[in-house]
Amino acid sequence: MELINIPAEEEILSLLEEKKYAAIRDIFIEMNPADLAALFNDLPKDRTPVLFRLLPKELAADTFIEMDSDIQEHLIKGFSDTELRDVLDEMFVDDAVDIVEEMPANVVKRILSNTDADTRAMINKILQYPEDSAGSLMTVEYVSLRKNMTVQEALTRIRRTGVDKETIYTCYVTDYNRKLLGIVTAKDLLLSEEDDLISDIMETNMIFVHTHTDKEEVAQRFSKYDLLALPVVDDEERLVGIVTIDDAIDVMEEEATEDIEKMAAIRPGDKPYFQTSVWQTYKARIPWLLILMVSATFTSLIITKFESVLDASIVLSAAIPMLMDTGGNCGGQASVTIIRALSLDDVEFKDIFRVIWKELRVGVLCGISLAIVNFAKMLILHQGTVLIVGVISLALFCAVVVAKFIGCVLPILANKVGFDPAVMSSPFITTIVDALTLLLYVNLAILILHI
Amino acid sequence: MELINIPAEEEILSLLEEKKYAAIRDIFIEMNPADLAALFNDLPKDRTPVLFRLLPKELAADTFIEMDSDIQEHLIKGFSDTELRDVLDEMFVDDAVDIVEEMPANVVKRILSNTDADTRAMINKILQYPEDSAGSLMTVEYVSLRKNMTVQEALTRIRRTGVDKETIYTCYVTDYNRKLLGIVTAKDLLLSEEDDLISDIMETNMIFVHTHTDKEEVAQRFSKYDLLALPVVDDEERLVGIVTIDDAIDVMEEEATEDIEKMAAIRPGDKPYFQTSVWQTYKARIPWLLILMVSATFTSLIITKFESVLDASIVLSAAIPMLMDTGGNCGGQASVTIIRALSLDDVEFKDIFRVIWKELRVGVLCGISLAIVNFAKMLILHQGTVLIVGVISLALFCAVVVAKFIGCVLPILANKVGFDPAVMSSPFITTIVDALTLLLYVNLAILILHI
Repeated sequence: MELINIPAEEEILSLLEEKKYAAIRDIFIEMNPADLAALFNDLPKDRTPVLFRLLPKELAADTFIEMDSDIQEHLIKGFSDTELRDVLDEMFVDDAVDIVEEMPANVVKRILSNTDADTRAMINKILQYPEDSAGSLMTVEYVSLRKNMTVQEALTRIRRTGVDKETIYTCYVTDYNRKLLGIVTAKDLLLSEEDDLISDIMETNMIFVHTHTDKEEVAQRFSKYDLLALPVVDDEERLVGIVTIDDAIDVMEEEATEDIEKMAAIRPGDKPYFQTSVWQTYKARIPWLLILMVSATFTSLIITKFESVLDASIVLSAAIPMLMDTGGNCGGQASVTIIRALSLDDVEFKDIFRVIWKELRVGVLCGISLAIVNFAKMLILHQGTVLIVGVISLALFCAVVVAKFIGCVLPILANKVGFDPAVMSSPFITTIVDALTLLLYVNLAILILHI
Repeated sequence: MELINIPAEEEILSLLEEKKYAAIRDIFIEMNPADLAALFNDLPKDRTPVLFRLLPKELAADTFIEMDSDIQEHLIKGFSDTELRDVLDEMFVDDAVDIVEEMPANVVKRILSNTDADTRAMINKILQYPEDSAGSLMTVEYVSLRKNMTVQEALTRIRRTGVDKETIYTCYVTDYNRKLLGIVTAKDLLLSEEDDLISDIMETNMIFVHTHTDKEEVAQRFSKYDLLALPVVDDEERLVGIVTIDDAIDVMEEEATEDIEKMAAIRPGDKPYFQTSVWQTYKARIPWLLILMVSATFTSLIITKFESVLDASIVLSAAIPMLMDTGGNCGGQASVTIIRALSLDDVEFKDIFRVIWKELRVGVLCGISLAIVNFAKMLILHQGTVLIVGVISLALFCAVVVAKFIGCVLPILANKVGFDPAVMSSPFITTIVDALTLLLYVNLAILILHI
């Protein structure tokens, strides 16, 4: 699918064995930083320093920022001060910050002592913002223009300073107090006359965020307004940095992963699967397992209390797992749909009655279908009398409708009171639906079968 | 958070009542198309045509493409041919295709008869590609350059043709057969000398896709290689179009939603919650519910077969829901983690033994914790003898470990044989884990309690 040929680890290692450094370098310089980093992540750690030294400066820096943090740490520890400075010099400040955030204290100290005073100040500034804020995500390397410049002057400025900027496609017009006045895109500049004034072509209706805006909201802005970059201002509306779309996309992926993890009753982490230790994975998973297990005490209490009813026919107890699983699945479908719709802004609190009305109708349709199939299946397999099978099918119908109702209401309510709705997902809903289903079931059995 | 003030529907409707069209127009022209579209989606449908006519041409078109399809259809039906042509003229071809794909046949016919022959040909060309392919996602409006142009000539070409192009930031160098030779970014052009040759500054190691490449893979390229646009070539490697990052982001969101839906046993749809009818929602949810319900027959068979064992003490049957739920939750955690890691390329088939080894250790840790808490809880609440509580806790431990194992192995195997691993998620794993847990449980009870 690509013109670039990605070599196997074995190929590189055998070339290294034969000391064919020039051949390796020739392969490397044709590769993309993302692919090179993936290759380095898979190579034996002790071989990475010698291979890394074969990369030309700029490619080395671009590859370095894409690597797993343990490889980065290993490489930094082996770098001379000059090598470290070369890599850091080629990097954008926001990437340097990402690395600093992952490294142990002694490595951070070495990194900071090998950057010039300006860069160090920029890194420290970004580091002081809370982890999930726009401030921590931004870079301070943007193109700033003045409103009394001509297009010609602006283009000259971009030519002179653009090489060190994270993007030149969106430029920011500020006054002498750094207050953000407008934005101009490179497209505007290229399609305007050379002597047009920036103040005449700039867009003043801007989308921007504050340094403390949550990064999830930052990412939503990008997708809603189709942006390539988003300015970040402080409380006095002075421009302090910009977020670029590559970082916004990383946030979108992280947030989707977090939502998925929360829906599966996992406390979200921020590292890839193999970068997380067994102990960390355990700690992320055990809290909800314990809470949900202890909540299941209700189901055992109900079963114990209604022992005599359930003992009336083994068919009645044998149906419990089917009833509970189906209820859980129905509730899970509704809750997951609503959680996702909430996070994409398709559903809001004011829609709650529309949602309930829709889910009830879907629930009735699903409930009727499932009850009919269950009724037929149990009669064909001779599992119980018509009356008992009828009770089970009726309970199934009720369980499905109740599950759809609970599954759609709880996430909306959770969202309203400020909880993350993703936590109100299948495992949580299942626990509630289980208890309700059982109660419904035994009471229907008592009522209809007169046990 | 924004400079733009988003008006309430009521405000607009009351201005409309008072026929203050100029005031409405003044509000509208300060708004962003995405916000305007959201406002139109919420307004009473019969008011939308008169309000839409207040928008200036370009804003009207940009707003139109962001609207829900039922509002678009309503507006088109009310448009005169001139109005329809004005909106279509301002649109990029890929956006026109998106609209055509959502409209009923008679509306499509009217749209196509109101576009010029060139645009119609482009629309028809994109329409012929399969729905989930790069071809259906691309636009044909890109900047193409020749390799013997100078930077100066290239910039002149961009100035002349750029206004109608979806992006001018990545330009494509082709030969007279439209074969893709290289790419040049606007940054390269701005930072090079005016008389540099395009062939000297173009990047020839390109990332590209074919018209038939799956759109999920297209989106992954964007996020992996931090691209702003991606060229699409045909089987002869001739450039036929480009995909831009705004469309790639839409795909990323769609794919995340699809994965989440599949994990909740829902057949994925592609419309927002309220755009899907009750009947469509029913059809998306019922298949897996039926399959999973019928599979639960195994659990009832096991319970019926081991009736005598479970009758020995009500404590034994009362623990079944807790055992099954905990097993299901543990399996769900493992499967969801692995499914996500597979879709982010963090885990591949060759990692299967590393994954199993990690999940088994996490499973043992979780199993021990849960078993100890359960043992203590049941003894404190006087639920059963030490021996019975011991059997339940041991079964719990085994269920957790088995669930983690099944939960991690099935998605990897499904992925290997070409199934979507997202289908192997919680509800599916739960059904398998339920049956295994029950079997383990009754056999442990027989073995230890000698029933």
